[in-house]
Formats: sequence, structure tokens, C-alpha cells
Amino acid sequence: MSRRDDCIFCKIVAGDIPCIKLYEDDEALVFMDIMPLNKGHLLVIPKEHYDNILEMEPDLYGRLCSLVCRLSKAVESALGPDGMNVQQLNGAAANQVVPHLHIHLVPRWEGDGVTISQWDPVPGDNDEIKATAEAIQSEL
Amino acid sequence: MSRRDDCIFCKIVAGDIPCIKLYEDDEALVFMDIMPLNKGHLLVIPKEHYDNILEMEPDLYGRLCSLVCRLSKAVESALGPDGMNVQQLNGAAANQVVPHLHIHLVPRWEGDGVTISQWDPVPGDNDEIKATAEAIQSEL
Repeated sequence: MSRRDDCIFCKIVAGDIPCIKLYEDDEALVFMDIMPLNKGHLLVIPKEHYDNILEMEPDLYGRLCSLVCRLSKAVESALGPDGMNVQQLNGAAANQVVPHLHIHLVPRWEGDGVTISQWDPVPGDNDEIKATAEAIQSEL
Repeated sequence: MSRRDDCIFCKIVAGDIPCIKLYEDDEALVFMDIMPLNKGHLLVIPKEHYDNILEMEPDLYGRLCSLVCRLSKAVESALGPDGMNVQQLNGAAANQVVPHLHIHLVPRWEGDGVTISQWDPVPGDNDEIKATAEAIQSEL
């Protein structure tokens, strides 16, 4: 099991720091965010240390997200929110604070004032978007 | 193939509305967001219509996210951003605009001014968080 001595989430996985645990299996741990954006805000993490999505194998990333989907249904039954955000931040430029990959599931209620998924859509330049698509496609 | 006549993403899947396509397979379509938050902003959708995460089978949701992970590596190679946000919005209360499930992959650069993953963490009430965790756990 790869682990970083200076990583707070690795310490939670090891049981050296407590958490409010919801679920665990061989490769994943699910626990409550203690700085919740809303009631029911939870985190899904791999037990192994990966800084971010770029370090991860797609199948494992997919299995963690499959767990998020399963959890969303339990959150729906337990709390009956009006909506839910799934968020996964990679890198300080994307506001990732703990550099151990984690997926946020944040229940939402009408008028809750949470702004993490609020933006004004502005049309982009079509030719520039096409050129960018070609650049990404050539790396797929 | 389940499809909604009034759904813009179903029309894109059917080819009735054009898109800047990056990738497709039997169950997923990947195309560029034409109202990009940043250069390289792309969307992963299931070809079948699902309003949101609650309607989806966890394994299919996981496979779409596994594709997001694969795409993140191509975006890294092609554009070399400083970070990336993965976002998936469920319900109007979570700011979902098109009610056909979609996952945003948004490349990020230092100082780009995008605020979708910026918030001030405030400690929650521990007893309340524990009670919420038990409520969710009982539905798992």
C-alpha cells in the first residue's frame, strides 16, 4: 500500500487520524468532510496515495466514481436534497488543498448560497475550440 | 437507445445538432463545451438519456468517469494546464442547465479567475455531521 508520511488522508486511511467513516472496502474509503459546504458533504478517496487524476489508472478512478453514484442514492434517500454536486479538484490551480485525490459529493438545496457550480456561460471562439479539440484528440 | 425529443444532448448524440467531437464509443460521447470556462473545457455524456446521477447505474457512471481520467491525460499532454476540475452537476439546485447527465472536465491555469472550486472551509458541528453520517449509512 503506497502511503505518504506527510499526507493527512494517508493518516486517516491508516487510522492515525480519526474520521467519521461511512464506508470502506479494499481500495476506497468514504468519510464525512468536517468542513462541509452543506449537510451531507462527503469525500471518496482511494486508500493508496495518488496526488491527483493524472497519477491514477482510469479503471480505479472509475470504480471510485461508481461508488460516488451509489452513495448519491443513499444521500437522496437519507437527506432528500434538491440536487447534488460531484467535484474533483486536481492541482493548486484548481483549488485542490489536500494533495491526495478525493471526490466531493455535496448535497444541494434551493437557495443554499453555494456557488461552486455557478457560472455565466459565454460562447467561445469556434475555430479556437476546434483547434484545441484536434490537439487533445491527437493525444488520445 | 432511450432518447428524449426535447433534449439538446440527445439531439447531438443523434447527429441532429452538430458538435465538436473528441471521442465516441457504444455508450459515451465526448465533445467540446462551446461555452468554455477555459481552453479545453470538454463534456463526457452517456449516449442514453439520463437526467442525472440518481437515474444512473453505478457501473455505467464509473465507466464514463474512467473515460474522464483517460481524457485528463490527453488534455495534460496537449495543453499542459496547471490543474483540472472535474464537475458533474445534478438538478437545478446544483446549477445543472441541460438535464442530460454530463461531466465537465475543465483545464485550469494559475490566476485564470475561474471560481468553480473556490470556497472558504468552515468547520461544521461534529455531532450534527455524525448524525448525518448515520442517516446516510443506514441507506447504503
